[in-house]
Formats: sequence, C-alpha cells, structure tokens
Amino acid sequence: MKKTQDFIQKNQQRFLDELFELLRIPSISADPEHKGDVKKGAELVAQHLIEAGADNVEVCETAGHPIVYGEKIIDKDLPTVLVYGHYDVQPADPIELWDSPAFEPVIKKTDIHPEGAIFARGACDDKGQMFMHIKAFEAMSKSGEMPCNVKFMIEGEEEVGSENLGIFIKEQKEKLAADIILVSDTGIISNEHPSITTGLRGLSYVEIEVVGPNRDLHSGLYGGSVANPINVLSNMIAQLHDDKHKITIPGFYDKVEILSDEERAEMARAPYDEDEYKASIDIKDVQGEEGYSTRERGSIRPTLDVNGMWGGYIGEGAKTVLPSAAFAKISMRLVPHQDPDEITEQFKTYFESIAPDSVTVKVKPHHGAIPAVTPIDSNGYIAASNAMEKSFGKKPIPLRSGGSIPIVALFEQVLGLKTVLMGFGLNSDAIHSPNEHYGVFNFNKGIETIPYFFEEFAKLEKQ
Amino acid sequence: MKKTQDFIQKNQQRFLDELFELLRIPSISADPEHKGDVKKGAELVAQHLIEAGADNVEVCETAGHPIVYGEKIIDKDLPTVLVYGHYDVQPADPIELWDSPAFEPVIKKTDIHPEGAIFARGACDDKGQMFMHIKAFEAMSKSGEMPCNVKFMIEGEEEVGSENLGIFIKEQKEKLAADIILVSDTGIISNEHPSITTGLRGLSYVEIEVVGPNRDLHSGLYGGSVANPINVLSNMIAQLHDDKHKITIPGFYDKVEILSDEERAEMARAPYDEDEYKASIDIKDVQGEEGYSTRERGSIRPTLDVNGMWGGYIGEGAKTVLPSAAFAKISMRLVPHQDPDEITEQFKTYFESIAPDSVTVKVKPHHGAIPAVTPIDSNGYIAASNAMEKSFGKKPIPLRSGGSIPIVALFEQVLGLKTVLMGFGLNSDAIHSPNEHYGVFNFNKGIETIPYFFEEFAKLEKQ
Repeated sequence: MKKTQDFIQKNQQRFLDELFELLRIPSISADPEHKGDVKKGAELVAQHLIEAGADNVEVCETAGHPIVYGEKIIDKDLPTVLVYGHYDVQPADPIELWDSPAFEPVIKKTDIHPEGAIFARGACDDKGQMFMHIKAFEAMSKSGEMPCNVKFMIEGEEEVGSENLGIFIKEQKEKLAADIILVSDTGIISNEHPSITTGLRGLSYVEIEVVGPNRDLHSGLYGGSVANPINVLSNMIAQLHDDKHKITIPGFYDKVEILSDEERAEMARAPYDEDEYKASIDIKDVQGEEGYSTRERGSIRPTLDVNGMWGGYIGEGAKTVLPSAAFAKISMRLVPHQDPDEITEQFKTYFESIAPDSVTVKVKPHHGAIPAVTPIDSNGYIAASNAMEKSFGKKPIPLRSGGSIPIVALFEQVLGLKTVLMGFGLNSDAIHSPNEHYGVFNFNKGIETIPYFFEEFAKLEKQ
Repeated sequence: MKKTQDFIQKNQQRFLDELFELLRIPSISADPEHKGDVKKGAELVAQHLIEAGADNVEVCETAGHPIVYGEKIIDKDLPTVLVYGHYDVQPADPIELWDSPAFEPVIKKTDIHPEGAIFARGACDDKGQMFMHIKAFEAMSKSGEMPCNVKFMIEGEEEVGSENLGIFIKEQKEKLAADIILVSDTGIISNEHPSITTGLRGLSYVEIEVVGPNRDLHSGLYGGSVANPINVLSNMIAQLHDDKHKITIPGFYDKVEILSDEERAEMARAPYDEDEYKASIDIKDVQGEEGYSTRERGSIRPTLDVNGMWGGYIGEGAKTVLPSAAFAKISMRLVPHQDPDEITEQFKTYFESIAPDSVTVKVKPHHGAIPAVTPIDSNGYIAASNAMEKSFGKKPIPLRSGGSIPIVALFEQVLGLKTVLMGFGLNSDAIHSPNEHYGVFNFNKGIETIPYFFEEFAKLEKQ
C-alpha cells in the first residue's frame, strides 16, 4: 500500500478543502425546509465518487432523500467491501450555543486535538468519517492498489430513520451483493487508545401529547380544580423509572441479553477514568441503573430518556396559565434481543394505563432501530483490528457502543451481511450537540487505515 | 340617577367605539418590545379621563410603566371612591389559537353572549371593565349627578406584579386618601346570577432551572449513564403533590385559614353545575385536593401549578438528545393567611433539598401577591350588593375567587382601605387565554351599575 499511502500524504490539504465544501451544505434531513440542501449534498458526494474513479455512480431517487451509489469492480473473484455512510446531518439547534456557525467549517486547536479539529455540524457524524472512505478509495484507485472490489452506498436519511434505505436494500439485493459492510460512524476510546465498536444499541422513539382542558386556562380561576397537563405528564414521566433507576414498563427487560461475568470483566478492562468522564461534562455525580457500572449503563443496558418536553408559557417573564396540553419526545435505547416494535407497543400500553382520567394521552411512534452485535472472531473484525494496529501502532479494544445506527441490523436481516464498525470519532466530538467537531488527526488516520483494512480483508478472505 | 342612565343609554355605541380604540393598542406589560404601546395606552386613558370631566389628570412616570391619575372632587364632605384598574394586558401567546387577531377587536355572537361579545386581548381583563368606570363617571359628571368624589388610579403593570404601583401608593398616601377602593377585574357567576368577589387568592411565582451536563449530549452515548435534567425535573415536580393531591412542601399549609362548616355550606349554595363546568372545558374528570369540592379547591384552598416547562429538542421530528438543562415556571395560589415571601422561601428550600446530586438547581422568585378578603357587612360591600340588585333585579351572591390581584392586600396595608371587587366578567371570557372576550351585555350592565354604587355608598356613609 506504499503508493496509496504516499498519495494520501501528498493530498491531505485537498482532502480537507473538499470536506469543507461538503460541510458547508446544510443537509438537515429532519427539516423539510432543507430538502434542496440534502439533494445538493447527494450530488456533491456523487461527483466525488466519479472523480475518485468509481463506476456506475448514481444519485438514486427515493420517496424521501436520495441514496448515492458507486462501485469499482476489479475482479469478480476478489472479495467485495460495501461501504455505508450518510451525508445528512442533525439539526444545529440550539444555534446560539455554537461558537462558530454550524455550517461554516473552521479548524480550531483544542487540548484533545492539538493538531486542530474541524468544527461544523456533520464534521464527525457523518460527513468527515464518510468522506475518509471516498478519499481512501481515490488513493487506492489512482495508485492501482485495490485489493478488493468496493461498492458505496451513501444515504441521506440516517438521522431520521433510514426509511427509504430500508426499501432500497430490499429492492437491490443483487446490486448490493458483497462480503462485508464497512462503516465509519462510531468512535475510538481516545487518540491514544484505538477501539472497534462491536455492538450498537437499538432505539424506540415516541412522541407524547397529554391534553387536559380544551383551552389554556387562568391558573387562578381553575388552578387546584382542574388537572394541569404539565403536572400530570411530569408525574407520568416520573413513574417510568423506579428508585433504583430501573425502567418500570412491564415486560421491558424480558428479552434483554444478560452478559456473563467474564464478558463484563473484559469490557471493564478498557481504559476509563470516571473522574475525567464527570469533569468532561461538568457533573458532580453520575446516575443510572443500580447494579451496573457507568459504562455498562451506557452500552449493555437499555435506557429511557426524555429528549424534549414542553407545555404552557415558555417565553420571557411570568404568565399564570394552566395550559391545555403538554408534550414530550421520549426515546429508549435497546440492547440485544429487545425488539423495537414490541418495546414501543409495551411503552404505549403502559403509558396510556398510567394516565389519570382527567386527561387524554396520545402516543405516536417514530422510527426504531434493532440492536446489533459483531463477533470479534469474524474476518471483518480481524481485518479492522489488524489495520488499526498498523496505523495506530496499538491493537484496538473491542467495545460496545451506547449509540444506534438503525440500518445495521437491517443489513444483516436483508443482505445477510455483518457490519464492521471501524470509526474514528471521539465522545468529546459532541455529535448531536453544538460545536460538533472532528480531529484532523482522526480524519487523516482514518484515510490511512482504510486501505490497510482492504488489504487485510482480502488476505483473510483468501484463506 | 335618571339623567345619568339616560346619558348612558344614548351613548352606548360611542362607548364601544372608544373601547375598541383602546383595545387596539397591544399594551403588553411583560414584553419589553411593547413598552411604547403601553405608554400609548396610558396616554389614551388619560385623554378619556380629561374628556370625561376629570381634574388634575396626569400620566405619572415610574421606573416601569406609567400610572394614570385623575380626580373629581365635588365636596370635601362627600365620601371619596378610589377607582383602581389597569390598562396593561397579558401576552397573546399562543397566537395561532386566536380565531381573530388579538388586537383587532370584533363583536361576535356566542351562546352565552347572544347580544354579542367583544373579542380581543384585554376585552375583559381589564380594559373593558376598567373603561366602564370612566364611562360611568363621564355620564354622572356630564349629568351633574355625582354622589361621591372620585379618584382614578389606572396602572400599567398589573400583569407583571404592580411593582411600581406599590411604590406609588406608598409615596402618594395623601393624594390617594379615600373611603373605599372600587375595582372591576373579577367576575359574576353568570349573566343570570350576579355575584361579588369577597376574597382573592395570593400568589407565589418562581422560575426553575435544572442543569446536568455542561452541554447537550448524544442520548445513545450518554443515556443511562448521566442524569437527564428533564427526567430529574419531572421527578421533582411529581414530588410536589402526594397521591391525595396535597402539596408536600413542609410548612405550606401551616397558616392556611380553615373555614367553618357554616361558611363552606354558604359558599356551596351558589348555583353551580359540575357537568356544565366539565363540559365547558371538555374534561372527563375534575382533579384536586382530597376532601374539598371543585369550587373550594379553586377558591379557599392553596394550589401549585406548573405554568410552563421546557427542555431539550422541541422542534419538528426526532432528535435524540440528552439535554443539558430543563426549565419550569411554577406558581402557587395562596389563601389567608399564607405569606407569599414565606411560601416562596419554603418552596425554594424544599425544592433544592429534593434535587439529586447529579444536577444543580436554581430557584428564582418572581412577584408575589398577598391573599385578601372583604367582609360582607362593610358599607362598600353592601353598596355594591344593592347597586347590582338594582341593575340585575337579583341580589348578588358573595363568592371567593381563585384569582389574584396583587395590589389589593397592599392597598389595605398601605392606604388602610378595603377594596370592593365588583366585577362583571365571566369564567368563559377566557382571560389569559386565546379568544378572550367580554359581553356587550356585561360592559353595558357595568356602566349602568356603577352610578348606583356611588349613590348607595354615599347613602350608607352618611348614616
């Protein structure tokens, strides 16, 4: 891979400039007002694939946002790597908390990133990480050093549930035939401690509406006599956990995989400093399910969080209103073998049952995600492990993530393929938050590592 | 009072037109962006007092919004009625729920108001009701039939706590010397059942901030490991009531006046239909403190309501964030002899004590109001009762209100004067809500009744 690595070294600045151009497009899939921007994002990704040397590049229209496809088939007897990523991004809210504009990328040095980090929405999740694959491919392709065939499938709906990708992979099974799926949308423990994500949590997401009186009321004339939907909703939310921080939904834990003591001990060996963890987000104390460590609570245990809640008067100053309604967005992270549709149904049944008669409750389900696990004795995992060992000089640690990538379990169900989650982000990159960023070191390390993966995977598949 | 009543009859249309002009001014005291409009409101009120025949009319500047003063001293040996009202209004939010624009008054017929009602923010609270007094005064003044002296004190901060009125009355005790204070800012049971408000609840208002991590977090990477401020705040709010809907703040009920069984029976005699009450706001069930009726819960018992609550992502669609903070606006309605400052302190102490270590809690107090009661054997009450009996053809029922008018207890403390709450609004007028309105019948009935009050009060004071 020498020519490839030389090419990469020579073109580092251009790779960054091209990434900046992609980051400037506000491809926010959740916001209908940015539909045009999402399309522009797809077109730019397609252009780069063509310029990198891909064949049959296509911006595939869907009922929602487009999916970009491209491929390079060297030899049908070589293994095929299917690269998945997404070019859509989370909304930037709350905008006022960004130090620099969310869609104007800029490199700033930080303590964790002394070489600098690219600050922009999508820098890490997922444009920066996805783009590493296109650049690594360009380097291999233009250097004539491609150990595997490659297919690219870059979608525009990951942040809103990948609904149309699900349809696409069902309709295009032949076109997408491959031997492994490679994804960079997760992270490493730190720049000194590489790791590979071997598990993802699932997701169940619901929107709640609690309605009391048919209009906002004067809280003097009606307060005390009429149930206040905000108080009621607070009460109901409070009932979702017991005092050991266990979720109270009946049946919720029935299918949860219990890890053996050995597995839990193995996980606990990964480097971790709880004081640093707390200090990094400025909290005095962690909090979670009794009987589990902080990292276990964030990876192998299911959870419930209120992601948003509102009702009544939330503007400047005082207004003494007894509001007509209160609302919440609630999501649950799931672990093997919980089923999102089943969990959503359990939540709905339970939540409706604890509502008092003084209000009406509506539960509207959103997109879900099935939990997923990648075994560490698979060729894909070993290839990634060897590749990272080469580029980092250190063997990566297998780690279960708390996050969800909805499509990964679907890949296995529909395409029969495992996914290798070889990501290069850091927890401190603040994905989904203001001031999201991605280290220049990490961007470059990923581009360096990916060709080694192709090389290793080809070797292992040959045996 | 014949000439006066004739004058009123002849000028009904003009009175409405003038009220409309006043309603068009968005004199929202809570919103700094409308400071100019509030001033315009004061100037228009002053202009009307001058045209009605008042002397020494003045728009008195304060550190906040102006207070309008005017007087007519007929004879120093006659009793003096001090009329209080306010020309500021509540914000119109949520604007999208208004059927016609909040500051474009229009008369629409309704089932309850077959003669029509004026729809606009402030139509009932308090411009419509306050303006009745200026028109009644004009009628008495121009007909030469003034049984008492009158002083007007119309402020612009009632909806935000009357802070500068408090200062004003302390500094102007001599100027404001009178025998009774007359206020129309409350209601009657119905247009067929007049009533006089003999009690007002007090108020304690606080703003809450609960902060967890120092930034919004990804709910996959951190959910389950880090306390979610929305879940925590919901938990804390849920703890503010027990399962009998009693408020759990230690000491909260210590000074609450317990009414005798006879008083409670007397109150219960006022006409009331609980099915109609529930149907009017479209609720399946009422809810409140065990051991008390719906009306008692709304008048003689203290309460706690969350007026607004927000945190996390509240826009369109899904965003899986574990938010940095959650916020709430909470108010408590108080009854004799609870003290608002004491209650606020009790709340703050308790709320901070139930916060877990995983978050920091800030409690910021707002304006409060002391509860107030007017005895039914006072000249002021009897004068109002007789006046209403004359104009309605039926003796009004004494009734305790659930609402608060912060300045009333202060009037007694500082000026040594009781207040007569002779109001003409209805619960269905939706004050503080969208589509606030005020019956044309009620507006006219108030203007008719007020001169009778002056006449009756003069008679009683003479004895």
